[in-house]
Formats: sequence, C-alpha cells, structure tokens
Amino acid sequence: MSSREPKQDRSRATRQRLLEATIDCLADQGWEATTVTAAAQRAGVSRGAAQHHFPAREDLITAALEHMFDARMAEIRAESTRLPEGPGRTEFVVSRVVDHYTGELFKAALQVWTAAAADPSLRERIVPLEAKFGRTVHQTAIELLGADDTDPTTRRLVQATLDLARGLGLADVLTDDSARRQNIVTQWAATLHAALPQS
Amino acid sequence: MSSREPKQDRSRATRQRLLEATIDCLADQGWEATTVTAAAQRAGVSRGAAQHHFPAREDLITAALEHMFDARMAEIRAESTRLPEGPGRTEFVVSRVVDHYTGELFKAALQVWTAAAADPSLRERIVPLEAKFGRTVHQTAIELLGADDTDPTTRRLVQATLDLARGLGLADVLTDDSARRQNIVTQWAATLHAALPQS
Repeated sequence: MSSREPKQDRSRATRQRLLEATIDCLADQGWEATTVTAAAQRAGVSRGAAQHHFPAREDLITAALEHMFDARMAEIRAESTRLPEGPGRTEFVVSRVVDHYTGELFKAALQVWTAAAADPSLRERIVPLEAKFGRTVHQTAIELLGADDTDPTTRRLVQATLDLARGLGLADVLTDDSARRQNIVTQWAATLHAALPQS
Repeated sequence: MSSREPKQDRSRATRQRLLEATIDCLADQGWEATTVTAAAQRAGVSRGAAQHHFPAREDLITAALEHMFDARMAEIRAESTRLPEGPGRTEFVVSRVVDHYTGELFKAALQVWTAAAADPSLRERIVPLEAKFGRTVHQTAIELLGADDTDPTTRRLVQATLDLARGLGLADVLTDDSARRQNIVTQWAATLHAALPQS
C-alpha cells in the first residue's frame, strides 16, 4: 500500500496543476483557446497525462470550476473565524462576496457562461453547477452575516448583494475597476447594514 | 435630388436590418458565429451589400452596439415623459435600468466583452464605447430620478444600481431569471429610495 502513495500524490498534484492552468487559460485566453492540450502545456503536463485525467474538454473545464470554487470557499471560511461586530461585519461580508466575483475564477467562469449561451449541451452542464455555486455563496454570506434567511427582506437583500457583486465582476473584465469598486462596496455595505432587519 | 432619395432610403433600411441582425446573431449564436456573412444572411441582404456598409466585422459589431444602444435610450426617454412621484418614481427608474441590462442588447454586448477580454485590439475599441454607454445610462438614471449627482452618496448608489442591473443581466443569460429578478428590483428600489438623500 505505502509504495502506491507517492504515485497517487503525483497524480493528485498533476490533476491540481491542470485544473489551475485551465482557470488561468480561460481567464487570459478565452473559451476557444482553452483546450485540454493548451491547459496541459500551460501546466507542464504531457498531453497523454492530461487526457488520462480528463478525456473531454468539458470534463476538464467543469472540474476546474468546481475545484477552484471549493478552494475559494474554503479560503473565505478560513479568513472568517474572527468577524468584527456591527457595521464592520456587514462590510467584511460584502467585501468577501465582491472579491469572490471579481477574481480570476469569475473571469474564467464568464468565458464558460458566455460560450454556454450559444451551446445548448454546454448550457445543460453549466446551469446546475452555477446554481449550486450561487446557493453556496448565498448560504455562506447569510452565515457570515449571522442573518435570518427565512426573512424575505434579508433574503432579497443578500441576493441583491450577490447580483451587485456579479455586476462589479463584469465591470472589471476589460479594465481595472478596483478604485471605483471600493467606493461602491463601502456605500452598499452601509446601506445594506441599515436595511437589514435587526442590524 | 428627389430621384436619389428612394435609393438612400433603401440603403438606410439595409444598414438598419444588418445592425439588428448582428445583435440577434450575437445574442443567439455568440461571438465566433457572428461574421459579416452570417449577419447579411440573417438580414436577407447580399454579402456584397453588407461588406459595402461594413468592410470589417469589428465595424459591423461596434456600429450595431451603438445603433441599438441609441435606440434603447430613445425608447427609455420616450417612456419617461410622465413619471410617478415618490417611491414609485424610484422603482420606475430601477426597473428601466434593469430592463436595459437584461435585454437582447446586453446579451449581445456580453459576447463582445467576453471576446474582448482575450483580444487586446478588440478591447481597445470596446472600452471607450462601453465607458460612453455606462456614462449615458448613469446620466439618464440621475435625470429620471431627479437626483443630485454632485452628492457622493447619490452618485455611488446610482452606480451600484447599474452594477446590480449588470449582475441581473448576467444571471439571465443561461436561464430565465425574470421571477426572481422582479423581487430583487422591488426590494432594491425600496432600499435605494430610503437611502437616497432628500428622497
């Protein structure tokens, strides 16, 4: 058994490098350019090894989105063990949600969504994945805010925060929007804090 | 002179059909599929006539985005001659902004932005166009709200409304999000109305 472990470790490391290279490639080069071969080259992995892990491009891309999403959610949770109280807590959560939708993972996912808009079979794979991601971010935001999701106002305001964050993500795709974005985050966090029941 | 008018009219009508077909094609088929030939075919125009108007694909696509944007803004202004007062006015304006970013023009523009993310020369053409569109929608929203754009809170909340609308546009690309969106618009309008100074 123990003699197999290093091989499994190598295989796991190869898989991870491939998934990260796929996200980089999507964000930089776009959907058309992100083939299994291109991701393998970027990861420094042989084409054969890449195809062993991911026979089709769609398998590689959905695995990459899932892997990166899970890694980002784990990071957000790890950063959130000691939350401030009061308005600072709301701003912390709004910032983390906006960071999530303005990072490289969003830029990669945007390429996939846009391709899926004109490709029904890709759309079929991406819609449930995207719904799961949305639910997870929403649930994480509710927990970090310590808010009550059974209250309709709370639920809608948290949903609106996610929609705002996606819009800010889009505004950052072609130009660096970070200075303007910081003002929007500060303003919305204050408005959200005042609007949330019992906050 | 008068004998030339019908020809000019025909030429103008051809150009307009081409521009509309280009937006339809981008929204349905995506960036890669939207060539001058494909748009000409969709518009029922000969390839030669299309290339006479638009020698390069980028000319056709930027002209189509500008034409449709101007047409949509003119529609919004025409609809906005008799605005309700109070919270109903804020909701009217939020709804119009959100409608703008969830329509076919947004779906077409999204294809162009996403392609531009991986294409520096396209990006160079699209960034100033997109900045002009954003300024125009912002200015229109400020005017329709009767708000004071020199107030930083107002400016940021109106910007946030545009970002929210872009996020709602994105959420509508792969699935029909209209039912959820209506709740978000109602909630956002109420929150915005309460947060705007002197409203």
